Amino acid sequence: MADSNFTVIHQDASCGARLGSLKTTHGVIETPIFMPVGTNATVKAMTPENLLAINAQIILSNTYHLYLRPGHALVEKLGGLHKFMNWQGPILTDSGGFQVFSLGELRKISEEGVRFQSHIDGSYHFLTPELSIRIQEALGADIIMCFDECTPATADYNYVRRSLDMTTRWALRSKEAHRREGQQLFGIIQGGMHHDLRARSLEDICSIGFDGYALGGLSVGETKEQMYGVMECCAPMMPKDAPRYIMGIGAPEDLVEAVWHGYDMFDCVMPTRNARNGMLFTSQGRINIKAKIYEEDQGPLDPECSCHVCRTYSRAYLRHLYRSGEILASNLNTYHNLYYFLDLMRRMRKAIQESSFSDFRRCYYEKQDTNQIAKGG
Amino acid sequence: MADSNFTVIHQDASCGARLGSLKTTHGVIETPIFMPVGTNATVKAMTPENLLAINAQIILSNTYHLYLRPGHALVEKLGGLHKFMNWQGPILTDSGGFQVFSLGELRKISEEGVRFQSHIDGSYHFLTPELSIRIQEALGADIIMCFDECTPATADYNYVRRSLDMTTRWALRSKEAHRREGQQLFGIIQGGMHHDLRARSLEDICSIGFDGYALGGLSVGETKEQMYGVMECCAPMMPKDAPRYIMGIGAPEDLVEAVWHGYDMFDCVMPTRNARNGMLFTSQGRINIKAKIYEEDQGPLDPECSCHVCRTYSRAYLRHLYRSGEILASNLNTYHNLYYFLDLMRRMRKAIQESSFSDFRRCYYEKQDTNQIAKGG
Repeated sequence: MADSNFTVIHQDASCGARLGSLKTTHGVIETPIFMPVGTNATVKAMTPENLLAINAQIILSNTYHLYLRPGHALVEKLGGLHKFMNWQGPILTDSGGFQVFSLGELRKISEEGVRFQSHIDGSYHFLTPELSIRIQEALGADIIMCFDECTPATADYNYVRRSLDMTTRWALRSKEAHRREGQQLFGIIQGGMHHDLRARSLEDICSIGFDGYALGGLSVGETKEQMYGVMECCAPMMPKDAPRYIMGIGAPEDLVEAVWHGYDMFDCVMPTRNARNGMLFTSQGRINIKAKIYEEDQGPLDPECSCHVCRTYSRAYLRHLYRSGEILASNLNTYHNLYYFLDLMRRMRKAIQESSFSDFRRCYYEKQDTNQIAKGG
Repeated sequence: MADSNFTVIHQDASCGARLGSLKTTHGVIETPIFMPVGTNATVKAMTPENLLAINAQIILSNTYHLYLRPGHALVEKLGGLHKFMNWQGPILTDSGGFQVFSLGELRKISEEGVRFQSHIDGSYHFLTPELSIRIQEALGADIIMCFDECTPATADYNYVRRSLDMTTRWALRSKEAHRREGQQLFGIIQGGMHHDLRARSLEDICSIGFDGYALGGLSVGETKEQMYGVMECCAPMMPKDAPRYIMGIGAPEDLVEAVWHGYDMFDCVMPTRNARNGMLFTSQGRINIKAKIYEEDQGPLDPECSCHVCRTYSRAYLRHLYRSGEILASNLNTYHNLYYFLDLMRRMRKAIQESSFSDFRRCYYEKQDTNQIAKGG
C-alpha cells in the first residue's frame, strides 16, 4: 500500500535521515516535513494565502474539534474540509484519540470505545474506532489516523501493555471500517516510555499494514531523554518504505533529532501557540517579544530570517503590537514562527540531499549552545 | 493654504456632493473618502497589504493612544508612524481631544488644557493644544487636528457656548504651535446640537484659517435627526475650497447623507469594531454572522460584493470561525466590512462624477427600506 505513494528519494549515508516524497490526492509532499496545526479548520491567525506564502505543504486538522463544532456531517455537506476552509493542499486529520484522552475526568474508556463529555457544552458522546474513521472520511482529509489510546508518560507498565493491545485491536477495527478511496490510513504505535512495549506495538501495528506509521504517546509529559530514547529504539524497526510520523512534536531541536533518526513527518502547536504568547523562534534562540530590551529595537525579529515579517517590521513595533493586545501581533508572530519551522525543515531536506545531515545536526547543537551561553544560560 | 492641496474636481449639480482631490505628502486622496481607524498604529486585524488590497487611501491613527503607548518620542525616534507601522500611504491623526473627553471622571478641563489619568496604568498627564501638536508632529501624520473640547449631546447651551469659545482659543494656540512642514492642520468646529453655536464656531474657526475644516462633537449620543440637522446647518457655511471632514461618523446611511450635503472625509470604528463582534454590512442589510440561519449557508457573505472574503468563503465557514472564537474571524470580517465601506465611497464618487448623486441617494434609501421590510422590520 504505502510503497505506491511514498518514495525515499535519498538516504543520508551518515545517519538515518532520509529525503522522501509522499503523493496525496491534493499534491505531493516533500519529507521531512512539519505540518502546521489547524484545529478548528483554520491554522490560528493564518490565512490560506499566508500558508502558501510560507510554503506550507500540508496542514493538520483535529477530528475531535470538528466533530463537536461545526460537525463532520455539516463539513461533508459543504463539500469537505478542503473546500470549507479554502485550503487546496494536503490535509491530515488526527483520530481524536489524543484530544479525548486529554479530557481526563471527562472520559471513560472501554473496549468498545470512549465515552466523553464535550469541553464546549458538556454534552455526552461515544467515540469508537469506527466513528473516528467515519468522521475522518466525512472531513475528507488526504491522510487519516487510526483511533488509539494515548497513555500518559507516567502510566505504569501493565497499564501501558494492556492499553497498547487494545490500540492494536482498535487499529484493526479502524482499518476494517475505512472505505474512502484516495485517503491514506496511518497506524499509530503506542507503548509509553517502555522500549519493549514500543517494539511489541510496532510489530503488531506493522503486521496489520498501513500507508504510514506514527509514534503516538510522545510530548505527553516525558523528559527529552525519554522522548529521544523512544525515537532511537523505534527507528530501526520502522518499515523503510513507508512514511514515519511522530505525532505532537516538537521543539526545533526535537525535529532535528527525529529527522536524524529517520522520521519524516511532524506536527505541533508550539510555533502557533507560542506566537500568540509572544514567544518567538529565531536563529539566535527563543525570544520573548514583550521584553523591555526590545522597546527601541529597530532591527528585524531575526536578522537571518527572510520571512515577510522580518523583512518588514522592527522588534519595537512587534513589541508594541503585543503589549497593546492587537490581533496583528498574533498574525505576524504566527507567520514568523511557522516560517521558522518550515524553513528549518527545508534546510534539513537540503542537508540530507547533500548527505551532510550529521554535520547539519552538529552545527545546529553548537549554535544552540552558543545562543544559550550568549544569553547567560 | 488649503487651496493649494485641495481641488474640487466636480460639483454634482443636483446637490451639495462634490468630487475632490487632496494632495498630501504621502499621496493624493480622492474624496469623498472613508478613513479606516488604526488606533494603536494598526488597523485592528488588518495588515498594510490588506489595506492596499481593499484600496484604502488614507487611515486615521489616535494621538491619545500612541502618546500613552508606545509614546510619540519613541515613534519619532524609530522614523515616524509611517515607517513604524509600515503604511506608506497618507495618515491623519486626531488631536486626542475626543479620547480625553471620553474619559469622564478621569479628566479635568481648564483653559490651559486637560489633566487626565491614563486608562492603561492610571498615571497622570496634562494635555494642552501645544503638546497635542507636538505629539502629532512627532508621529508625522500627513494631516493633523487642532486640540478641541468635544461636548456631549446632552451638554446645555451655556456650557457649549463657553466650551466652543475655548476650543477657538485652543485652535489659535494649535496653529501657533504648529511648525512641521508638509503636514496639514485642520480646524475643528464644535457647538453641540445648537445651530447658532455651530455657526458661531464655524465663523471663528474659519477666520483663523486652516488647511481643512472638521465637524467635531457628532456621534456623541445624539439622534440621527440632530446629527443630520447639524450637517445641514453647517454645510452651506463651510469654505468650498477646503476639505470638509466629519469626525467619528458613521453608519453607511450617515455617509450617504453627509456626502449629499457636500462633506468629503469621514472616519469611524463601526466597520472594524462591528466586524470583531460578527456584525457585517452587506448589500442586503446588516447581518449577524453567528445567527443559526447561516449554519449551512454555502453562499457568500454578500452576493453583490466582490471582495476576497465574499469570493472565497461561505457564510457557514464565517459563522464557524466566529463561533469558535478564531482570530481569522476578525481578520476576514474586518476585511469585508472595510471593503464594504470603501466600496460604498467609490460608488458615491462615481455617482458624483456622473452628476447623479441625488439618484444614488434615493436608490440607496429605497433599497434600505426594502431590506428592512424583507427582514420584517
